[in-house]
Amino acid sequence: MYELAVVGGGVIGLAVAWRAASSGHRVTVFDPDQTRAASRVAGGMLAPVTEAWPGEEDVLALGEESLRRWPDFAARLAADGHDPALSTAGTVVAAFDRADADTLRTLAAYLHELGRDADYVAARQLRRSEPGLSGAVTGGLIVPGDLAVDTRLLLDSLRMAALAGGATLLSEEVLEAGESATVRTRAATRRFDAVVVSAGAWSGRLLPHLAQHIRPLKGEIMRLRARRTTLPPPTRTVRAMVEGEPVYLVPRAGGHDGDLVLGATQYEAGFDTAVTARGVRRLLDAAERVFPGIAEYEVVETAAGLRAGSADNLPLLGEVADGVYAATGHHRGGLLLAPVTADAVVAWLAGVPAPPGVAAAHPDRTKERV
Amino acid sequence: MYELAVVGGGVIGLAVAWRAASSGHRVTVFDPDQTRAASRVAGGMLAPVTEAWPGEEDVLALGEESLRRWPDFAARLAADGHDPALSTAGTVVAAFDRADADTLRTLAAYLHELGRDADYVAARQLRRSEPGLSGAVTGGLIVPGDLAVDTRLLLDSLRMAALAGGATLLSEEVLEAGESATVRTRAATRRFDAVVVSAGAWSGRLLPHLAQHIRPLKGEIMRLRARRTTLPPPTRTVRAMVEGEPVYLVPRAGGHDGDLVLGATQYEAGFDTAVTARGVRRLLDAAERVFPGIAEYEVVETAAGLRAGSADNLPLLGEVADGVYAATGHHRGGLLLAPVTADAVVAWLAGVPAPPGVAAAHPDRTKERV
Repeated sequence: MYELAVVGGGVIGLAVAWRAASSGHRVTVFDPDQTRAASRVAGGMLAPVTEAWPGEEDVLALGEESLRRWPDFAARLAADGHDPALSTAGTVVAAFDRADADTLRTLAAYLHELGRDADYVAARQLRRSEPGLSGAVTGGLIVPGDLAVDTRLLLDSLRMAALAGGATLLSEEVLEAGESATVRTRAATRRFDAVVVSAGAWSGRLLPHLAQHIRPLKGEIMRLRARRTTLPPPTRTVRAMVEGEPVYLVPRAGGHDGDLVLGATQYEAGFDTAVTARGVRRLLDAAERVFPGIAEYEVVETAAGLRAGSADNLPLLGEVADGVYAATGHHRGGLLLAPVTADAVVAWLAGVPAPPGVAAAHPDRTKERV
Repeated sequence: MYELAVVGGGVIGLAVAWRAASSGHRVTVFDPDQTRAASRVAGGMLAPVTEAWPGEEDVLALGEESLRRWPDFAARLAADGHDPALSTAGTVVAAFDRADADTLRTLAAYLHELGRDADYVAARQLRRSEPGLSGAVTGGLIVPGDLAVDTRLLLDSLRMAALAGGATLLSEEVLEAGESATVRTRAATRRFDAVVVSAGAWSGRLLPHLAQHIRPLKGEIMRLRARRTTLPPPTRTVRAMVEGEPVYLVPRAGGHDGDLVLGATQYEAGFDTAVTARGVRRLLDAAERVFPGIAEYEVVETAAGLRAGSADNLPLLGEVADGVYAATGHHRGGLLLAPVTADAVVAWLAGVPAPPGVAAAHPDRTKERV
């Protein structure tokens, strides 16, 4: 049994806290403001395949490893907390022009080689699946294997499950998480047996030697609600590139904060989290091009969060100092990678091998590149 | 001294309540939900001149009568409540093309005929006044006489002043305001000496014979905040037509809800007050065309309200049944017309002549048109 400190209470920190507490460790989570977690404003796609790209095999492998763990993770969570409403409807990636179509066909061929299920189909067949797609859509990729999750329901459930498992959640800012698992806050300095730094974009402040490898990537999203007079939201997650920028529409069945998440912009803007006029306009422009019926939807919320970007899109997972573990840099993949990350931490503490794919994400890889 | 019931606690109802209480009447204001007042989401332009159009001389005359009363109204309010932050910076109306320029020159000529100050100037001169205007602006009208007010500060101040003057504010819905000044709520039926119906778009429910002349006109606005890295907001109110729709940017000096109000869409959508994706996109598109720097502003709020439209854009002001007075149908002019409307009610109660221009707004004029 370890005394474990978890710095950061977003989806990674809470998943780690829950799984570690379930494994018998005494867990303390530090987070001064859980509302700023990037996972709170995430779309909730668990979509390693449609995020995949040739050359990023490590990212895809880790993502698929975590995706395989998701159904079991969700089932246990439904038992310990409440059901995080996993959607199995899959994803559609829409193409507008020949360039889009070529890109998606390349992606489909690559995925077929890897033995994954993903078909490029013509517009007519695509619209049979999603009738609300724009007439300007010329075809697209149908990916049945992708999952999606209601991010806020998930965070609530993880928090409940972690507390039920005996974890302590403190609203305190960690100023320093030093070697030998020492945690300093304004109130006190405490020794733990191990510290997991899962502070997302803020992790660089606690892991100075990794600071240059973790950068905040601002993302804006909107939540919208279908209305009596509008088309219903799409059944699947819908993605597309509009003027070179990715857009996604993730339906939220029974979501209390609207029933569609529209995302996401991406800027390098330091730790700024203001929702800008430009961001909102771009999201709405792009969404109307893909799914015109959204124009009459009600705007329920606009929000921004900070993803923790790494240079190679792989997270930073592993021991970085005596008793200090990094579990950060998840970029757009925090929701997807929560199960494999939590399982990795539990394996590290138990001294057993971590899940496949985790070793490739060890922070030591950054040393070669500096 | 009258027992006066005021139905509706928006800018008209509160102005009437304050002035009537100051004149010695015992005032009771009924409003089940003051947050839905159209004045809460209004831009706050007190701009009869830039709203003027040949053929609507009655509207202009009443507006100018009220505009003359505004400085005194604001000064008294600063004494009884707090300063409503009247801005005297004026208005700029921007033109993009020859059609816009022709329209504004026609308006300028009409205003000159009436002896009003309004000059059409070329782009260079316009941008000397407002450097943030788009390079696509070809010229515009400068109107020094227009005022603007911080609408929420004004509503707060009117509420304070009305209460300080002895008025009672009840959060009750009036179900019926019958002849002989009887007011029925769920709780009780009370007799008053007079009833003023100032319930905006909802007035038709209480004045069934006028219902077809008062229709809800939905308007959406946004509040934005300049940031450290952006251009400051314009000094004056900036207006323009973009793709056939009017847009305005009203600066709010020291506003706690952002420092720019961007408005306003206009739809006939019944009593629907959802902020739609289309409305937000249109406002932002239009604003960026006029004042490109707004793209980097922070989005602070989106909101919708219901204006009370009349067929001829004149409000409905006058006794409509024994002891029952209409003070509604102010459309886009509620803020502007609050002083003259309040003064008219006080005059009616005192049995003295109402201010010039009020007689033309008597509801009897609708009879000829039915």
